[in-house]
Amino acid sequence: MDYASFFSEDTHSFFRSPVREIFKKVDLSSIYSFAGGYPSAETFPLDGMGAIMQSVIAEQGGKAFQYGATQGVPELREVISRRYGVPVERVQITSSSQQGIDVCTRVLVDPGDVVLTSNPSYLGAIQSFRSYRADIVGVPHKDSPEDFRKAYEDAIRGCIGSGKRIKFLYMIPDFQNPSGETLTLAERRILVELAEKYDFLIVEDCPYRELRYSGEPVATMYSMAPDRVLHLGSFSKIFAPGFRLGWIIADPKLLDMIYVCKQSLDLCPPVFDQYVAARFMGSGMLDANLEKTKALYRSKRDLMLRLLEENMPRGVSWTRPEGGLFLFLTLPEGFDAVRFYDKALAAGVAYVAGCFFFSDGSARNTMRLNFSFMSPQKIEEGLVLFGKLLQEELQ
Amino acid sequence: MDYASFFSEDTHSFFRSPVREIFKKVDLSSIYSFAGGYPSAETFPLDGMGAIMQSVIAEQGGKAFQYGATQGVPELREVISRRYGVPVERVQITSSSQQGIDVCTRVLVDPGDVVLTSNPSYLGAIQSFRSYRADIVGVPHKDSPEDFRKAYEDAIRGCIGSGKRIKFLYMIPDFQNPSGETLTLAERRILVELAEKYDFLIVEDCPYRELRYSGEPVATMYSMAPDRVLHLGSFSKIFAPGFRLGWIIADPKLLDMIYVCKQSLDLCPPVFDQYVAARFMGSGMLDANLEKTKALYRSKRDLMLRLLEENMPRGVSWTRPEGGLFLFLTLPEGFDAVRFYDKALAAGVAYVAGCFFFSDGSARNTMRLNFSFMSPQKIEEGLVLFGKLLQEELQ
Repeated sequence: MDYASFFSEDTHSFFRSPVREIFKKVDLSSIYSFAGGYPSAETFPLDGMGAIMQSVIAEQGGKAFQYGATQGVPELREVISRRYGVPVERVQITSSSQQGIDVCTRVLVDPGDVVLTSNPSYLGAIQSFRSYRADIVGVPHKDSPEDFRKAYEDAIRGCIGSGKRIKFLYMIPDFQNPSGETLTLAERRILVELAEKYDFLIVEDCPYRELRYSGEPVATMYSMAPDRVLHLGSFSKIFAPGFRLGWIIADPKLLDMIYVCKQSLDLCPPVFDQYVAARFMGSGMLDANLEKTKALYRSKRDLMLRLLEENMPRGVSWTRPEGGLFLFLTLPEGFDAVRFYDKALAAGVAYVAGCFFFSDGSARNTMRLNFSFMSPQKIEEGLVLFGKLLQEELQ
Repeated sequence: MDYASFFSEDTHSFFRSPVREIFKKVDLSSIYSFAGGYPSAETFPLDGMGAIMQSVIAEQGGKAFQYGATQGVPELREVISRRYGVPVERVQITSSSQQGIDVCTRVLVDPGDVVLTSNPSYLGAIQSFRSYRADIVGVPHKDSPEDFRKAYEDAIRGCIGSGKRIKFLYMIPDFQNPSGETLTLAERRILVELAEKYDFLIVEDCPYRELRYSGEPVATMYSMAPDRVLHLGSFSKIFAPGFRLGWIIADPKLLDMIYVCKQSLDLCPPVFDQYVAARFMGSGMLDANLEKTKALYRSKRDLMLRLLEENMPRGVSWTRPEGGLFLFLTLPEGFDAVRFYDKALAAGVAYVAGCFFFSDGSARNTMRLNFSFMSPQKIEEGLVLFGKLLQEELQ
């Protein structure tokens, strides 16, 4: 039977994550994978997990397995409220940070509305924006504050000039996926000013914020304009992605609409998992685990940077992230990272072509490399091999 | 700040679940609650839960806490495939059965498309259909096969005649929420024939199917037309709703579109929970627990039916369900179950007004009563009290 005529208009704008498609075809453990955004399984607190779960069962009993509130269980909302210093009525739990992006888009965007974002930006967010037929306008990064402001303001004026409505700006201000770069305080202030001047909202996606290995934390945009910014957090990189838990911090009037939407999406987030996360975050366990995680990832980042220096051919440059899971490679003009992919994979190395993160599909000479997932030994073997492959290709 | 101008068109069709709103205001344990569709916490296999979880941690290690496949973990898809005798490529795991309804609607329905359903029908489904601006056409139940066919065929022809496209029929064939009624084999065959004749799909929602207390199972519509029916299942009533896990069984071409959609909705279902559910269903534990659950609910249903007989005023009638969690009361014409609600709640009894389950808001003289949640003692006290309240009201 042919179902084409049954599918909704939205489906014509769906596209498959190239990252997830890679994982369908290849067993990650059989190759050197710089693709994906997987945390290292070493960082999951396996030793303490059984004990946390037993105590949730003992303390909550049947409540841990029953339906829960759509906003999330009070225990978890309170722990997040305390940790980040926000009122509990400003905390909505989501069934993954990806759901946070999706539900914000659902309640804010009509087909043709503009979502402004950096170019490059997070692929899963682009998937979601496109699935609601948003007009995605990507702004390339500029180094000076003046040029940065001008680039964004030009893009905004371009949208307004052609009669388009900008609903929100989507940014990953800390250790961006894919670039690894962090917005400066000045840049964040500029974006908040522009949001106020031109009356749009900001969705600030911060899954990596707590994974800083050097430098000083920069204030969130939420802290600058709590009525205009929806701040997204995630347990995936600081606890375990297998629980699929995230949160939105925002004005209660915005959260109320998200709450009603979430009722029809999935009624409530997973309840048992929320109690486990509340216990993990509410005790000292999260902080202790985070210290170990940061030490591990810091050493992997440093290893990556050294190995790139030693193994990359001339003409290749890369970002030097202060945190997060990724760095971004730029190869000489004319190099095609999409075309090179099959050759690299056949030799045993996987990456994600950078152009997938550009809403206009440009920058085919770039690639995203992950440094959190593999062991130091595999990172070293993989990068030495990758260096040789690129040397051959660029000769 | 006023956000009204930021919200998408869809949000104007969102509405709050009256059931969930009740739970925001009232502590369930402080009243006699015949509202809600909560399983009894007694049916959650608390004794075995810790052991299952420990063995998942021991066997799967970090894999249980890592990102998983968008389709669901293979172990759970295989267990469902074996239990229900369908190929594994026809099984997609969802983050709750509510998500199953939502994602089917998302990939199939454009604003103005018709979703055909019974009148009454499941409230959470109506919420989801309306949120995508579907045109919901509810068909009242008729008792003879001829009248049943005519009612549906008239509705279908009415839609086609006014130029509307019917995308799918949504039905809960077993122990319907809210009515408690079950479609006969003849009725199911009629619906499948009509779907083929008028070329629409069927979404068959079966969360209660395994909770049969008397009578014989009736074949699913999926078994009659596996290319035209999307069959939804759920762990909420046979294991625990706190895990938020369900599944869709359908043609791989339909599932492929749902898979791409789910990538941007939440990447993948909760991973640890899936391994726990796979172990529970794959071992004999689910079947042993189900026998106990059915014995418990059977005795509660019988108790309800006896107490209704003894306590309801003249002129009140009710359904006699062969399974599930609900029965449906019809009060004399002119009685208003919405208006009566506050009085009942003040006296300590909660129910859900039946009109909320009617897509046209009719049948204000009906109500849904749940019999799974409370203890037999509370059911008895609650129904005796409720009988008195109704006696007074109807005098």
